[in-house]
Amino acid sequence: AGDAEAGAEKISACVACHGKDGQATAPIYPNLNGQSAQYLESSLKAYREGQRSGGMAAMMTPQAQSLSDEDIADIAAYYSQQ
Amino acid sequence: AGDAEAGAEKISACVACHGKDGQATAPIYPNLNGQSAQYLESSLKAYREGQRSGGMAAMMTPQAQSLSDEDIADIAAYYSQQ
Repeated sequence: AGDAEAGAEKISACVACHGKDGQATAPIYPNLNGQSAQYLESSLKAYREGQRSGGMAAMMTPQAQSLSDEDIADIAAYYSQQ
Repeated sequence: AGDAEAGAEKISACVACHGKDGQATAPIYPNLNGQSAQYLESSLKAYREGQRSGGMAAMMTPQAQSLSDEDIADIAAYYSQQ
């Protein structure tokens, strides 16, 4: 399982759209707070593997591709606890 | 914009995983309550257009393909207000 404290140090690219607290900064973005870590990991990995297009995928895919499995687990842990 | 009251009549296929109140029934599913209608519409249309694979897309794609633009707007309005 991810480390939420470590995740808090890895969200610099996330916060512009998803907020530090997981509340989206504009209606086109999803809130992340309160989602399960399992779902957040699944979504980030789908973006990383190029399995999503449309919507904001053109932004999310390269972001996710910069993340290791551990980074994804840590970020998912962080936002699931907001 | 969608009609949340009409949406409430169109969620019979959604509730098994996302709940009547938008709270996921298992950790692999996302909560929908509190997301903006705009984001929910964007996501459902991405599934409908076959733009998502991985995760639960094999379930979501056919579900979304059974929905009209109006259905999607109505369902998005309903869950955004939960």
